[in-house]
Order: sequence, then C-alpha cells, then structure tokens
Amino acid sequence: MLYQTSNLKIEEIIVTPIAITDPPLLNAAGLHAPYALRTVLEIKTNRGINGVSEIPGNAEVNEALAQVAEQLVGWDPFQLGALKKMIFDTFGKEEDPRGDAPWDQRKVVHIYSALEVACLDIIGKAVDRPVVDLLGGRMRDRVPFAAYLFYKYEGAGGKLEFNKDPQATGWDAARQEAAVDPEGVVAQARAMCKEFGFQSIKLKGGAFPPQEEVDAMLALYEAFGAKVPLRHDPNAIWKMETAAHFGKKMEHVLEYWEDPVRGQKNMADLRKHFDIPFATNMCTTSFDDLPASIALHSEDIILSDHHFWGGLTASMQLAMICQTFGRDLSMHSNSHLGISLAAMVHLGAALPDFTYALDTHYPWQSEEIIKGGRMKFEDGAVSVPEGPGLGVALDHDALAKLHQNYLECRLTKRDDLVEMRKVQPDWTFQATRW
Amino acid sequence: MLYQTSNLKIEEIIVTPIAITDPPLLNAAGLHAPYALRTVLEIKTNRGINGVSEIPGNAEVNEALAQVAEQLVGWDPFQLGALKKMIFDTFGKEEDPRGDAPWDQRKVVHIYSALEVACLDIIGKAVDRPVVDLLGGRMRDRVPFAAYLFYKYEGAGGKLEFNKDPQATGWDAARQEAAVDPEGVVAQARAMCKEFGFQSIKLKGGAFPPQEEVDAMLALYEAFGAKVPLRHDPNAIWKMETAAHFGKKMEHVLEYWEDPVRGQKNMADLRKHFDIPFATNMCTTSFDDLPASIALHSEDIILSDHHFWGGLTASMQLAMICQTFGRDLSMHSNSHLGISLAAMVHLGAALPDFTYALDTHYPWQSEEIIKGGRMKFEDGAVSVPEGPGLGVALDHDALAKLHQNYLECRLTKRDDLVEMRKVQPDWTFQATRW
Repeated sequence: MLYQTSNLKIEEIIVTPIAITDPPLLNAAGLHAPYALRTVLEIKTNRGINGVSEIPGNAEVNEALAQVAEQLVGWDPFQLGALKKMIFDTFGKEEDPRGDAPWDQRKVVHIYSALEVACLDIIGKAVDRPVVDLLGGRMRDRVPFAAYLFYKYEGAGGKLEFNKDPQATGWDAARQEAAVDPEGVVAQARAMCKEFGFQSIKLKGGAFPPQEEVDAMLALYEAFGAKVPLRHDPNAIWKMETAAHFGKKMEHVLEYWEDPVRGQKNMADLRKHFDIPFATNMCTTSFDDLPASIALHSEDIILSDHHFWGGLTASMQLAMICQTFGRDLSMHSNSHLGISLAAMVHLGAALPDFTYALDTHYPWQSEEIIKGGRMKFEDGAVSVPEGPGLGVALDHDALAKLHQNYLECRLTKRDDLVEMRKVQPDWTFQATRW
Repeated sequence: MLYQTSNLKIEEIIVTPIAITDPPLLNAAGLHAPYALRTVLEIKTNRGINGVSEIPGNAEVNEALAQVAEQLVGWDPFQLGALKKMIFDTFGKEEDPRGDAPWDQRKVVHIYSALEVACLDIIGKAVDRPVVDLLGGRMRDRVPFAAYLFYKYEGAGGKLEFNKDPQATGWDAARQEAAVDPEGVVAQARAMCKEFGFQSIKLKGGAFPPQEEVDAMLALYEAFGAKVPLRHDPNAIWKMETAAHFGKKMEHVLEYWEDPVRGQKNMADLRKHFDIPFATNMCTTSFDDLPASIALHSEDIILSDHHFWGGLTASMQLAMICQTFGRDLSMHSNSHLGISLAAMVHLGAALPDFTYALDTHYPWQSEEIIKGGRMKFEDGAVSVPEGPGLGVALDHDALAKLHQNYLECRLTKRDDLVEMRKVQPDWTFQATRW
C-alpha cells in the first residue's frame, strides 16, 4: 500500500454511543447495569483513511466531543501536541474531578484520549505501520492479561437482564453463574482461565465483608497454587485498621494489592507495613498526582489506563516516569470492546518494561464492533493485531445494533448505585465502607 | 513523494569523524582547541532513504558505533525501543560516568542518540513528514536561541590557530577578537546580537575571578537593559560562599543562573537563598539523576541536550517529566554544525512548553556539512527546516574536507586542559576553583 501523508486533514468526526451487554458484576460502587456504555469515535480524512477509537460512554463526554468535532475539520492528525493543548484549553482541568467511584469521571482526558487514539490509527494507516511502531516499536509480540474475577449475581446482562441463557455453553454459560462466596469465585476463575488461558488472577473486591474476601483469595491460592499470581482490589473502601488487619491474612498469597485504602497518604502509610507491592488506579490517576505519589511513595505499581491518562503517547511518557522513579506500570480496564483492547495491546507491546499481566474486562463482554468478531486470547495473551494502525476495522452493522441498544436502554452514564438499589433498595455508596 | 515503510531495513551505517574550526574559547575546563570534534552518522536503508545525525566527536564513541553498526544491518528503523534496549544492554550504564567537565562524557547516551536521530530522519523521509511531526507535531514554527558569549583569546581557530584573518568582516571579524574583560564581552554581545538577532544573552563564565564576571554581567545589563534576559554559567566551579556572595551582586540582572556550584545538594542549598531560577546541565544530566533532583529541588530549569539525554523521544519524555514536576526545560549545546542544530530545532518546535531561548554554539562555527551551507537565524530564531525528516541533506564534499581536518589534527577527544596548557603551562583543572 502506498499513501501520502502530506495535506492529510480531518474531514469528519462521528461520535456513536453504544450500549453493550454487561453482567451483574458487584463492586465497591454497587452493581453493573445490564448494559455498559461505550463511545466509538470515527475520524474521516480527506485521503480516504479513517481512524477509530473507543472510550467509556458518557453523554456529557459525547456532547463535548460533538462540540469539538466541528473545530477539528481541517486539522492535521499528526498535530497531536497542538490538539492536546486545544482540548485542555477548551475543556480545562478545573472542576473536572476524578470522583470517588472506581472509574475515572474526568472529561478532558477522555476526550483527548478518544481523539489521540483515532489520530494514531489514521497515522498508522497513512504510513502503513501498526500503532505500536508509532510508540517506539514492539518490545514483545504478545501482551499478557490477567483473569479479572468479579463477585456477581446470576445472569448475563443485556436484554436478558439478570436471567440466564440456558443455551449457553463453556465460558458463556459459566459467566452467567453467581459468584458470591469463595466456591463461586474459584469456579469462575477455573472457567475463565480455562477459556482464555490467563496465568494471573485478580478479584475485584470491596463487595463483601473483608473476611469473606480474604477467604476467597485464600481459596484461589489453594486452588491455583503459588505459580499463579493473585491480586485483590477492594477499590479503596477498606478502613486503615481493616486493611492492616485483613491484609496481613492474605499478604503471603498476593502478587500485589490494589487500592486497599483511599488516598495517597493512607496508601503510603499502610504500604510501610506490607512486604508486597501496592498498586493503584484510584489515588494516582493523573500526571498532576505524580509529585505527591513520588514524594509519599503511595504505590509501587501505577495501573495506567490510556483512556484516563490522555492517550497512548502520554502512557508511554508515564512509563518513562515510572522507569525513572522506580515504579512499575501495568494497566487498568473497564468493560470494553475490541477497539480499546487493540489500543491496549499496541501500548502493551511498546512498553519498555513489562512485569505484571494487564487487566481487562473483555471476557465479561460478548459483543463486538470490529470486523472478524471477538479478539482471541492465547495462553492469556493477545497478539498485536496485524495490519496498519490499530489493525481493527469497524463493523458498521454491529455498531448500528449496539447504538440501537444505547437509544433503547436510556442510560446516559455509568451509575452502579442506581442499579444496586434495584436489588437492595436501601443501599448507599460509602467511600469507606468496611 | 511516495514511499513504502514496510520492510524498511538498515543496510549500512557510516561513521565519519570530523574536525571543525573552533575559536580559542575559555571555560572552566580550560580552552577550546583550534578544532572541535564532531561525528557524523549516516544510516542507509534498503529503500534508498538515508538518515543522518551528528554528535560530539570522541574516538571511543566512534569505535563503539562502528562495533554496533554491523549488528544493525537488517534492523527496522521504527524499532527504537528495542534499539535503545540493545544499545544500553551492550554498552551498559555502569562505569560510564558523566565526568566533572562541563561536557557530558557518557558513551551510551551518545551512541543511542546518534542512532535514534538518524532513524527519525529516515522515518520522516519514509513517511514524508518532518521530524517534528514524529514528536507530536509543531507547537511553533520558529525556535528562539540565545547569544552564547565566551571569554576568549584573540583568534579564529582552525588552521589559523590563534591568528586572525584580516580579510574577515562583520561577525566573522568580531568573533576573532579577544574578550577578556567587561568591555570585550559587551562588544562581543553587540556584534553577535547584531548578526543573529538574539534577544537573550548567556555568558559562559568560570574563566575569570568572580568579581570580573559579575562586572561583565552588570556591563551587559547596562548595555542591553532589562528587556534582554541575561544568564551566567560558571560551570559549577564556584565555591558555595563565593556563589552566595557574588551571586547576590548580580541576582537582579539574571533571568536564570546556570550551575553556580557543583552537585545537586549544593545547588539546592544555594537556590534557597536566591529569587531567580537555577538551571543545570551539570548536576541533573540523566533520568537517573531525576529522583534526587525532584526530592532536593536542585534546579528550576533542566538544560536538556538530546545528545546526552538519549535522543529526541527521550527529550520529549523529559519535557513531560518537567511539566509534571513543575520544572522548565531549555537546551544546552556544544560546538556543533547544522545537523545537530536541525535536530534541536525540530525538538524545540515540538516542546509543549517553551519559556527560555535555547543555547547554541553555532555562531562560533563557520563551516557546514549540509547542502545550502550555514543555517539562517532570523531575530535570533531558526525556522523548522522544510522537507521530510530533519530537512537537511549531507554535503559529502564538505564532509570529506572536514574529515581530512580530523585526520590531520590528530585530536581524538575534547580536552580543554591540554589546550590551556599551551597558553598557561602550569594550568590545572579544578572542579571547584574560585
């Protein structure tokens, strides 16, 4: 393929909100709704090269993207520094807080990330190179992920709501099962690892009383043994005393502990009493958080997320900061489809250091919007997609169908509290619960 | 132009040491020799696209480059992460100290920088884009530089040794004059600013007793007024008491003060007593130095140099670190020609923040190895070169001539002490002199 990169210009930006089937997963903030929202961005250029990206869905972010889309007609996709400045100047960082939820609620980083990834997809296609080669080239061909276990109620989500599909087999059947105790968690782990070949396991905690979650981690250790690294993430809703006490009961089985307590200071104080690495995607989630993180040593591992750190280039810069200041970098995820997964894989392949298998919610999703359908895991790893750019092509029929879901489900943002109250009407979110 | 980037492979790496005419400039380490050494790297690929770069000349570095050149046949120039790892693994960072001299003597960063810049030149040409667009795109079209004044003896350097060329006019004549007192320094500044349009001025100090250098700075302030920012750089050879005492006499005229004292701890301690920013290219010169720099706050401005920080991408990462931790970034230079200048300009154009005009020794050089001859300054700034890659093409005749200089001058590394002793036989380098 031969392309010309000169006079490459953005002609149109299409923002498509979609709703994807999501099972009733429990977490510190409540319960996943039957649909998770994502937003798909398509950028069309004057040279017939289009780029795509995917970010967490949120009506406010979609409106902001639509607002900026017009300003970007005529923009050269290579001008990413100027684009970043324009987006940050337009939407500001003031009054754009991350929020207390396990997920990041900032607007500006989502908007820029959506634009940057799609521009990198365009650039890659324009120069006939995979995105990984725009990030410094590949350090590895296959990117390892971890099994991401959730406490959950029975059911598959989507139109099935909390009902089960009796036709399902294999992992499709297993993922509909409830997991509310150690046995359920171990069964889920066995089914997921069998299907995807994962060689590390994380349990999303913060859903049940600490002793129950400790029991689940110990049961996983008993079931999988010392060669499968285990992680636990109570999403910062444990009190300091709780974490100090219950953490000690499972310290010997954990590869790392993610956000046991809230805030950099608490993380730093607690960390001194443990011999395992601490990880976060809650207390150090932006470049602005890094000076205090480094000064306090609030964590050992930053669970980066290119959607929240402002794109793939910024994530590579974060990796350099981690290398410079003696931190490790791994990756956080939310419910997502293949465009986000492809971007994570390109980034994961380019990272100079790679110590910890990355997080992904992908096994919990069943739909896809890319041609060729669901991406494949082999021995828990995903290979860098073939072809230029992200190496994925949008399936517009599938996209239209999931957009219809979005219109029908009437959700406009993630709200695990509302969903939890359908099950437990008096449930409230507590930033520090146990 | 249409190119294909797939199967792009390095076919040959040509290392050409050159010697360029350099005037008798004084500094803390002694005196510049009549020739400054540079090394020019050419990388040829299988697709007829060649890349170039220029680094400080050093026979040991040249040998290492020649050693690695064979291993790199067949290498894809996009695979820069893997290249960096290979170079760092091959040459190590152990026993590769920066040294006490004003210039950086590490081997591994020079080697990698030479390779990275030439690869980026290749990539830019392969995709028909200027290097600045591979660094995130241009934040500005013109990159401002500062007048770099030196105490000096009379003479032009090169074959003329310390003799003067009576035919010279304008700056060519002015730069042959001696400058050993405030009047000489002001005359040099006037001539250089007239020729190049510089709007900031730095005096390389550390050559004369502190009061004389203070007098020179005050004379510059009197001559140019408050709108021309002034900087002074004694290359860390002032004692703490000296710096505390004499610094106060010129604090009110300085935009920033560069390396008044040696070491991060001393810089940090002294800095607390001053209201002007401190800059360094001596105490914080590598990513390994950054944790202590941030912890101590040894400086406000890092004078980066892509030759020493491991290339252009690493320099962009350094810029992100500076932005994250509240530091400014500007640029250091050594005697250099247009390939280095072009690389500095591409980087300078891509930097997200730009507060301080960059350093360059370029006015002290008179030769060139790029087609079209010497690069132009307008109002003290250099425009991003036109065309893909670095936007410069090697003039092989000029290169051959300067290589001949190299063979004839018999210098193998920079050594300002040896040169100084030709003038003052009993001169010794002192890491802390005044």
